[in-house]
Amino acid sequence: MSETIFELETPVVLVDLDKVEHNLRRAQDAADAAGLKLRPHIKTHKLPRFAQRQVELGAVGITVQKLGEAEVMADAGLTDMLLTFNIVGAKKLARLKALHERVTIRVVADSAETVAGLAATFRDPLDHLGVFVECDTGMGRCGVQSPEAALTLARTILAAPGLGFAGLMTYPAAGKYRQAAQWLADAKALFAAEGVALPEITTGGTPDIWHMREAGVATEYRPGTYIYMDRSQVVAGAASYDDCALTVLATVVSRPTEGRAIIDAGSKTLTSDLLGMEGHGYVLNYPEARIVGLSEEHGTLDVSACEVKPKIGEVIRIVPNHCCPVSNLFDSVTLVRGEEVVEVVAVAARGRVD
Amino acid sequence: MSETIFELETPVVLVDLDKVEHNLRRAQDAADAAGLKLRPHIKTHKLPRFAQRQVELGAVGITVQKLGEAEVMADAGLTDMLLTFNIVGAKKLARLKALHERVTIRVVADSAETVAGLAATFRDPLDHLGVFVECDTGMGRCGVQSPEAALTLARTILAAPGLGFAGLMTYPAAGKYRQAAQWLADAKALFAAEGVALPEITTGGTPDIWHMREAGVATEYRPGTYIYMDRSQVVAGAASYDDCALTVLATVVSRPTEGRAIIDAGSKTLTSDLLGMEGHGYVLNYPEARIVGLSEEHGTLDVSACEVKPKIGEVIRIVPNHCCPVSNLFDSVTLVRGEEVVEVVAVAARGRVD
Repeated sequence: MSETIFELETPVVLVDLDKVEHNLRRAQDAADAAGLKLRPHIKTHKLPRFAQRQVELGAVGITVQKLGEAEVMADAGLTDMLLTFNIVGAKKLARLKALHERVTIRVVADSAETVAGLAATFRDPLDHLGVFVECDTGMGRCGVQSPEAALTLARTILAAPGLGFAGLMTYPAAGKYRQAAQWLADAKALFAAEGVALPEITTGGTPDIWHMREAGVATEYRPGTYIYMDRSQVVAGAASYDDCALTVLATVVSRPTEGRAIIDAGSKTLTSDLLGMEGHGYVLNYPEARIVGLSEEHGTLDVSACEVKPKIGEVIRIVPNHCCPVSNLFDSVTLVRGEEVVEVVAVAARGRVD
Repeated sequence: MSETIFELETPVVLVDLDKVEHNLRRAQDAADAAGLKLRPHIKTHKLPRFAQRQVELGAVGITVQKLGEAEVMADAGLTDMLLTFNIVGAKKLARLKALHERVTIRVVADSAETVAGLAATFRDPLDHLGVFVECDTGMGRCGVQSPEAALTLARTILAAPGLGFAGLMTYPAAGKYRQAAQWLADAKALFAAEGVALPEITTGGTPDIWHMREAGVATEYRPGTYIYMDRSQVVAGAASYDDCALTVLATVVSRPTEGRAIIDAGSKTLTSDLLGMEGHGYVLNYPEARIVGLSEEHGTLDVSACEVKPKIGEVIRIVPNHCCPVSNLFDSVTLVRGEEVVEVVAVAARGRVD
């Protein structure tokens, strides 16, 4: 006597296991075909079971963004992780040290200050903490600004007894994979000319995942969102709505006017992330509806273009703009196959911001 | 040997107890002076201790937005609450019924459908569930569209044996308190002319909290954000930065260019809420800095206007755009007095979206 999604209280986050499996296999196949290692970013799902599945299917390990995520994944038995964040400060360095004693963990640095903190914490040659130089290849976030600066920082890492230079790491701006590939190629040429070994070059991003073959000199790819996909990826051309494994179920609670419907999912469910788009998600069962506004607990839909309009009490199914922060808002997600409920699972690494 | 905020790991949410107390007292005094009951919305803090303090200081009860919040507050001993949400669906109605058996809880409705669900659940005259008619006085969200529609729905409520008509409820659009007051005055006149008693008229909103005296025929005011205040309230003229009790502490982790600083707080800490503003918060110790972009775990600051620029490892203190959803992202907040840490407290009603 199985439960269906229509018996669930809303708002609720559904994750379709068949779509997850499809998305994971497709990306692993693409990485294999491109000759790239795959190191999925778990920030999207925050679930040990999916991290384990990614490794089973061929991923070389996982990517995490914060120490708290790494600790949850280590507790769950994951053994190889790249922490793509500059770890700064005594307390965080102590946590990194403790993690490094029980799993294979490597980190990034984009400054002499970050390297100095790592070097002071990992002093013993037996420590051999792997450190990537983070490179700003167009994103305008963290990262050294030129291949020359990458080389200088690599030499600083190489000079520290307890650190090992692991290679170059970048997160390219969406759509700018060619620019990133050129930057990395220039850096590789410079390192070769200077005789500095470059063990790995790791890049990432779901928006350009199907351009992995054009990642140039990269040896590893770190996609995150690809496991669930979302509206931003559909708009970017990386997915179809049929690929989207994470959806939000909401109930129409008010129909104040002919053209307006209010649902019980607001920014506390869907987030305010726009990622350059208009509206706050795509309504699968009312594709003509537009989610025009969000309060914390209310979503406002313009349903004037819907021939048949949703009624009070009716359930709608939404592909959110950005699936990753939606995972982070919910203590649990409901695993489903189609409309059948399989299991409710706690989002183990939810809220691990530090 | 007390701890200071500078010993905390970041990102972390600080709540200053002295500022909270000041903000609570100031609003209660204003309500008293205006002859209005105060019914604070706990969605901002989600903490039973602050709800209790609000009641101690004179609030007639609390406002909650979801059943889950009501359940947490009832468990903590709060006894009088208004749930300003249309409760729809058998499972939610059963939860409302269970709550109604242990605390005083009233709800809102803006449609015959919502009233029908309530009436079918609360059938006995001894139930006497208080139901407000929710009115759209300019917000464009839920609510009946005219005083005439309010009267019609009030009569539907009055006709249900187990329901009681509690009055009118609105959440006015920010800055449109005069429009809301006029709407409610028109409704009051209509109800009087038709001989329908109007027990309460409840309105709210922190943006216009210092215009409470101009709330016209309202009998009750429901502010939420006023306990913490935030950048949106400063911009709206309802608070100064010195009033802001909730701040986020973040660490500079990267200085990739002369004008750019990256902090360890992104949208998973500050949310993407813009509320019509530019930028993602106000930096108290670097007022010339602008938070120009957020990824999930990174904040990008333009520090080119700062004469002295923040260094890697330095801590910055941010007033977020919107404090309410920040509370909702953290499992706990750190209570402080100035720079002294007092206590870390779990955000009891965090993530109660249903």
